[in-house]
Amino acid sequence: MKQYKGYLIDLDGTMYKGSEPIDAASAFVQALKESQIPHLFVTNNSSRKPEQIADKLQTFHIPAEKEQIFTTSMATASYISDQTSQARVFAIGEEGLHSALEQEGHLLTEEYCDYVVIGIDRDITYEKLATACLQVRNGAAFLSTNSDVAIPTERGMLPGNGSLTSVITISTGVQPIFIGKPEPIIMEQAMEQIGLTKDEVLMVGDNYHTDIMAGIKAGFDTLHVQTGVTQKEHLSHFDEQPTYSIKTLEEWTSFLYNMKGE
Amino acid sequence: MKQYKGYLIDLDGTMYKGSEPIDAASAFVQALKESQIPHLFVTNNSSRKPEQIADKLQTFHIPAEKEQIFTTSMATASYISDQTSQARVFAIGEEGLHSALEQEGHLLTEEYCDYVVIGIDRDITYEKLATACLQVRNGAAFLSTNSDVAIPTERGMLPGNGSLTSVITISTGVQPIFIGKPEPIIMEQAMEQIGLTKDEVLMVGDNYHTDIMAGIKAGFDTLHVQTGVTQKEHLSHFDEQPTYSIKTLEEWTSFLYNMKGE
Repeated sequence: MKQYKGYLIDLDGTMYKGSEPIDAASAFVQALKESQIPHLFVTNNSSRKPEQIADKLQTFHIPAEKEQIFTTSMATASYISDQTSQARVFAIGEEGLHSALEQEGHLLTEEYCDYVVIGIDRDITYEKLATACLQVRNGAAFLSTNSDVAIPTERGMLPGNGSLTSVITISTGVQPIFIGKPEPIIMEQAMEQIGLTKDEVLMVGDNYHTDIMAGIKAGFDTLHVQTGVTQKEHLSHFDEQPTYSIKTLEEWTSFLYNMKGE
Repeated sequence: MKQYKGYLIDLDGTMYKGSEPIDAASAFVQALKESQIPHLFVTNNSSRKPEQIADKLQTFHIPAEKEQIFTTSMATASYISDQTSQARVFAIGEEGLHSALEQEGHLLTEEYCDYVVIGIDRDITYEKLATACLQVRNGAAFLSTNSDVAIPTERGMLPGNGSLTSVITISTGVQPIFIGKPEPIIMEQAMEQIGLTKDEVLMVGDNYHTDIMAGIKAGFDTLHVQTGVTQKEHLSHFDEQPTYSIKTLEEWTSFLYNMKGE
């Protein structure tokens, strides 16, 4: 196996499962830390701020600083900055999205918008959707933090941001640019953040359709872990395979320590 | 021109334009009334009750009783009754939808639903959409009052029920049965209501994609009026043509009086 200089790591299904720990995750991240291998946690969760996500990882004894968290909200804000500094943005979303946009110096507004951005918003209203549609019809660029259509919860599968996004898409006929996994945009933003090149970085995740496809589409090597959504037997259905697929991160942790010893 | 025994008549664009009158509408309906020709106003507006719509028509001097109004909410409630009496229904919508379902004897509930129904709801919440998705995933039949993706207003085009419906469709992967125009379901329900056969009735409306297509799909003769959405020059783009297309209803009113005189 190749020795990678950096890791991009998914969260839910890879580091934990909702509110439950995943056994091998803590030791794996500990090994990366001890080996001084740069790593970023890359998530399609747009609702929370990096410090909140780092706190959650720490409750699972996973070492994590807020600087190591890269959310799709941050990727969206950064994508806008690459095109327009101090853009006028109408944002439907939660704390994590508003905060990321403001930290990049964009102005949150409902009028004369350069961009309309939508992320999951559990306080969605008709008025917010109406404003988004009017601004998109008026020429604002239309971005969506991620295309996940459903969110697994204790109650069952609830509507994800991909389904909320469709209100604006269907009503205006304008397709959004999706930023999050499996799109390459979030991966390219993350790579810039970690300061390495594509062939130096491994993308780690449990979900073939988001994590592994994001890696494949962006041209990274990928490590599939069988602790979440996509099981080993599902992989055979897909044309493009991950570079590696392992049962749990324990295998990879041993490999990291062996490499270090060499 | 053929003498029809009954008329199904669209509202917005045919009888009025938003809050503005359409000149020839009042005399046309007056002529139907004087000629004792049965007629129903058939609308994709699910939000209001028939008495509210009849009141609106009367402000434009258009004679209308609440018994002559047939909304897509009524068609939806009646469609459910044809399959299940006293069904358990989770309904996202406004007053017109809840009232129509209750009048047909259905139970509005959030649990163990036989049906999930969605109509335009300007008080839409994430929780309503979540309940709808859970119930559809749990096997409830999924109905939508109408597929209109946008609503013309003074502010511009706002999200229509077709776009709100897409949240549930995209999130669950389940396609709804649409009841309103251009679907034939509302037309068949209206025909039952008016008590005539397809070849005896003329469908009148301004919008090719909803009114005229509804008539064509359900097998009615159609009268296109050029006072609303679809202009005369647009008609040539379509394969299937309305039976008649006229500038305003004035022409048809003269025809009605001539017929009566014969």
